Amino acid sequence: MSYPMNCWYVVAWSHEVPAVGMFTRTVLDQPLLIYRTAAGAIVALEDRCCHRHAPLSLGRQEGDAVRCGYHGLLFGPDGRCIEVPGMQQPPSRACVRSFPVVEKNRWVFVWMGDAAAADPALLPDNGACDDSGWHYRPGYLHYDAPHALICDNLLDFSHLSWVHANTLGGSEAIALATPEVTALPRGVRVVRHVAGVPPPPYYAAIRRFEGLIHRWFDYDFLQPGILLMRSGGHLSGDSPQDPERSVQLRSCQALTPETATTSHYFFMQAHPAHIAGDELSDVIHGLLIQAFEEDRAMITAQATRMDASRPMLPLHFDKALLMYRRSQRSDSGAPLGA
Amino acid sequence: MSYPMNCWYVVAWSHEVPAVGMFTRTVLDQPLLIYRTAAGAIVALEDRCCHRHAPLSLGRQEGDAVRCGYHGLLFGPDGRCIEVPGMQQPPSRACVRSFPVVEKNRWVFVWMGDAAAADPALLPDNGACDDSGWHYRPGYLHYDAPHALICDNLLDFSHLSWVHANTLGGSEAIALATPEVTALPRGVRVVRHVAGVPPPPYYAAIRRFEGLIHRWFDYDFLQPGILLMRSGGHLSGDSPQDPERSVQLRSCQALTPETATTSHYFFMQAHPAHIAGDELSDVIHGLLIQAFEEDRAMITAQATRMDASRPMLPLHFDKALLMYRRSQRSDSGAPLGA
Amino acid sequence: MSYPMNCWYVVAWSHEVPAVGMFTRTVLDQPLLIYRTAAGAIVALEDRCCHRHAPLSLGRQEGDAVRCGYHGLLFGPDGRCIEVPGMQQPPSRACVRSFPVVEKNRWVFVWMGDAAAADPALLPDNGACDDSGWHYRPGYLHYDAPHALICDNLLDFSHLSWVHANTLGGSEAIALATPEVTALPRGVRVVRHVAGVPPPPYYAAIRRFEGLIHRWFDYDFLQPGILLMRSGGHLSGDSPQDPERSVQLRSCQALTPETATTSHYFFMQAHPAHIAGDELSDVIHGLLIQAFEEDRAMITAQATRMDASRPMLPLHFDKALLMYRRSQRSDSGAPLGA
Repeated sequence: MSYPMNCWYVVAWSHEVPAVGMFTRTVLDQPLLIYRTAAGAIVALEDRCCHRHAPLSLGRQEGDAVRCGYHGLLFGPDGRCIEVPGMQQPPSRACVRSFPVVEKNRWVFVWMGDAAAADPALLPDNGACDDSGWHYRPGYLHYDAPHALICDNLLDFSHLSWVHANTLGGSEAIALATPEVTALPRGVRVVRHVAGVPPPPYYAAIRRFEGLIHRWFDYDFLQPGILLMRSGGHLSGDSPQDPERSVQLRSCQALTPETATTSHYFFMQAHPAHIAGDELSDVIHGLLIQAFEEDRAMITAQATRMDASRPMLPLHFDKALLMYRRSQRSDSGAPLGA
Repeated sequence: MSYPMNCWYVVAWSHEVPAVGMFTRTVLDQPLLIYRTAAGAIVALEDRCCHRHAPLSLGRQEGDAVRCGYHGLLFGPDGRCIEVPGMQQPPSRACVRSFPVVEKNRWVFVWMGDAAAADPALLPDNGACDDSGWHYRPGYLHYDAPHALICDNLLDFSHLSWVHANTLGGSEAIALATPEVTALPRGVRVVRHVAGVPPPPYYAAIRRFEGLIHRWFDYDFLQPGILLMRSGGHLSGDSPQDPERSVQLRSCQALTPETATTSHYFFMQAHPAHIAGDELSDVIHGLLIQAFEEDRAMITAQATRMDASRPMLPLHFDKALLMYRRSQRSDSGAPLGA
Repeated sequence: MSYPMNCWYVVAWSHEVPAVGMFTRTVLDQPLLIYRTAAGAIVALEDRCCHRHAPLSLGRQEGDAVRCGYHGLLFGPDGRCIEVPGMQQPPSRACVRSFPVVEKNRWVFVWMGDAAAADPALLPDNGACDDSGWHYRPGYLHYDAPHALICDNLLDFSHLSWVHANTLGGSEAIALATPEVTALPRGVRVVRHVAGVPPPPYYAAIRRFEGLIHRWFDYDFLQPGILLMRSGGHLSGDSPQDPERSVQLRSCQALTPETATTSHYFFMQAHPAHIAGDELSDVIHGLLIQAFEEDRAMITAQATRMDASRPMLPLHFDKALLMYRRSQRSDSGAPLGA
C-alpha cells in the first residue's frame, strides 16, 4: 500500500505514552515503539530489531535507550545501536529507523516520510485540545475499514440526517442544506448552515431550546485526515456568539491508517469550560461515542460491500470529497487557491 | 469464481422473508437485499448502494421502496433511484441491480443471470413443499464447503452405508446396490432399489417392520443443485403403495453457492399428512438434521483436504456425478436424452 | 513451500499413537494418518482418500487396515486399496501414499521424501529418551511460527541471558561467552562453557550451590531440526562428573514443520534417575514449559514482525546459524568436516 508519507500523522494521545515504559502502535503498516526519555521527550522507533527482527517492545527501557529482549542489542533514541553484547563496538549498519515525532496540544504526531522534510509548520492547529477554556474527554476508536472511507464520512455531513437521525442529526434539513466548500492548502474548508431545524437529540444534555434553531458547522479537513471544527446552534433571534443562549462546540479529529484496511481514529468534542463541569464532558463524550459507533457500523459494512470492479456514482454530496482528493494529488504543499 | 448464471437458485424459504422488513443473503458472491412490497410480492436488490457502496440493508423500507441509511438515496423495487436528497431528479445512472425473483411452493427463487432469459418454465417442481397431503418442517444449514462437493454427496447415495450407518443408512447393501442413472434435461435421474435390508434406524419413528425390507430412492437431481425425491420401504410381500404398510417419503433439497467456498442448503423430508401429526414431523426433522450434520462434518473435512494438484480417482460410484457434470456443460437447456 | 524431504522428521511421541485407533498430524503440509497394526508396528498414511479426498481419519480402523468413512474404500498399511465396495477388484491406481516410519526411543520418525532413500542410519541418537538411568516428562508445543525461526533460537544460546533471565539463564555472562562451533555431517556442534556465574533460577529445584558455578552446554544440532544436549553446572573446585556435587542434564528436542508458518516442537530434559523421583521430573518439566513459553512468545512475535523486504543483520551470535544453513544446502549427506 502506498500512503502519503511526508505529513504528520497522529499516533497517540499524549496520555497514552507513559512517563516510563513502552507503548506500541502500528502506523502505515509500520510497527512503532514509542516511549519517553527521562526528560519527557517522546521517541518513536521502528519496533523491529535490525538483527533478527524481534520486536524491541518485548525488551526493556534502560534510561533513554531500549534493549532488545532477544539478544540484548541496545538502541539509543536516534535508533543507533550503542551496544552489542560481546562486541567491542556495534557495526555501523546496526540501527533501527527513528521517526521525527512532535507532541503538540496533547496529540503525538509522527512523520513517516523523509525525516529531512519534517516541517513543524505543517502541524495542524489543534489548539482546542489544550485550551483551559474548553473541556472534553479524549476519544479513540479502532476501525476495521480503510482510512479513506472514514475521511469521506467526515467530508460530507449530509449523513447526519440518516446515520445520526437520533443522535447528532435530528433533521433531514441538514442533508438538504448545501455547504460552501473551498480549497485550502492541503485540504478543504466546509461551511454548512442550516436554519429552522429542531435541536438535535444530543443538545438536550447541553441546553434546552424552545423552538427551531439555526445550526452551523464550520470545519477544515486537512491532510492526512485531520478535522478541525467549530459548530453550534442558536435561536434565530439570538447571536451565535452569546455564550448564555447558544450552543458552541469545538472538535478535533484525526484519522491515521494502521494498515491498508484498518485505521486509528482520535477525536474530541469540547464545550466551553465555564458552562458546566466534568459531568457534561462525560455526557458529551458518551453521546459522541454512541454517534461514532453509528458511523463505524455503517463504514465497516461499507468496507465489506465495496466492489472495486463497480464504479461508485459521484453525486452533489461529494463536492468536498473530490476537492480533498485533488488536494492530495498536489502533494507539494503549495496552496491550491483559497 | 464463475457460476452457472442463467438458472433459478433458491435464496430462502418463504417464511424467512417477513411481510415488512429486510432480509439479506449472499448468493454467488452477490449480497442481496430481499423484502416484500405492500402487496406481498418479493423484491431482490443488490445490497450495495450505487453511490458509495453502503449496504442498503442498513437503511429502511419506505412503502415498496428502500432508503439507503448513509446518504438517503431512495430506490424502488425495480432498482431505480427515485430520490436523491437535495437533487431535483436522480441521475439516470443511479440504480442498483434488481433480480428476477419467484416465490413457488414456499421456496424463493432468484435468477442471477440475464434477466431477459429468466424463464419460469425452468423452475423445478417442488410441489411437495406445498401439498396439504404431506407434512414436514423446513430446514436450512450453512456449509463452509463448496457447492459442488455437496452436490456430489447427493448424487451418490452409496455414502448412506458409511456416513449414515446409524441414521439414514443401516446396511452396507445400500452401497452395493447399483442405481439406474439416466440423463435428464438439465440433470440426472437416479433410481436405487435395495432388497432384503434391515429398516434404517430412523424408520423406527415412523413404522416398525418385522423383518427385512425393500427400500427405494427415486430422485431427480437438477441444475443448479436441486434434489426432488420419493423414497420409502416395505416388506417384500407388500405393495410399496400401501399407505398402511409401507413407509413413503418425499424430499426437496436445494443447494445454492454463497461464495466459491461456502454454500446454502435448504431441505425438507415430508411424510403423508394422514399417518401422524406435528410430532412426527418434528421427529423426522430432528433425525434429518442429525444425519445432515454427519454429511456436513465429512464434506467440510473433505473441503479442507482437497488438493487440486492431485487427481481424484473416479469409481463406479461416480456415474451420476459425471453425468450431472456433463449436463452442466451443455448449458443450452436442450435435453441431453432421457 | 519446499522443505528438505530426504530426512527423518519427528511426528509424535510414541505414547501419542494409541494401540488401537487413529492419530492425525500434519507434517510439511501433508496431513498424516498414523496408527498401529495389531503387532504394534506404526503406519503412516496420507490422510486423504484417493477417491474423493475425504480424510481417512474420519473412517475406522479394521484390523491392520483403515476404511474410508465416506464411500467405504479399504486401505492396507502399505497404502494400497484392498477393497472398493461393489467392485470385484480395486483399480491398480487406487492407493494412498504410505510413508516410511520408525519408532525409536519413544520418538516416532517419518520420512516424507523418496521412500527408497529412507536410511535408518540417518536417525539421530536420541537414546536419552529411553534410558532407565534418566528420568523426564515428554513435552510438546505447537508454534504459530516457521520452523527455521525456532531452529535459529536453539542454535544461539546467548538468548538465555535475555529471554530466560529468570528461568534458564540468570546471568549476562552466558551471552558474553563465545561458544566453540564446529561443522558436523548434517549439522553443527556447539560447546559453550561459562565460568563464575550464579546458578540459574531453575537449578534451585535440583541442587543448591553456595557461590558461583561453572556451567556447560554441549550439543549437536542436526538436520532437520534435532537438538541433542548434555549440560550442567558445578562449583569450580568440583568435577563436572561428580554426580553428588554437580548438576547433570540431558535434553533431546525436535522441530518439525507443520506448514510454512507453523511448527511442532517435541522436547524433554532429563535428570539422572538416582538423584530423585517423579516429583523432580515434574518440577523440571514445569520449569521447562515456563521457559519454552518465553521462547514461544518471542519467536511468535518475531514471526509477525519479519519483513522480507528488509535484510537481517548477521552478528557474531549467528556463527552456528550460518554454519547450520550451509549444512542444509549440502543435502547430499556427505560430511562437511570434523
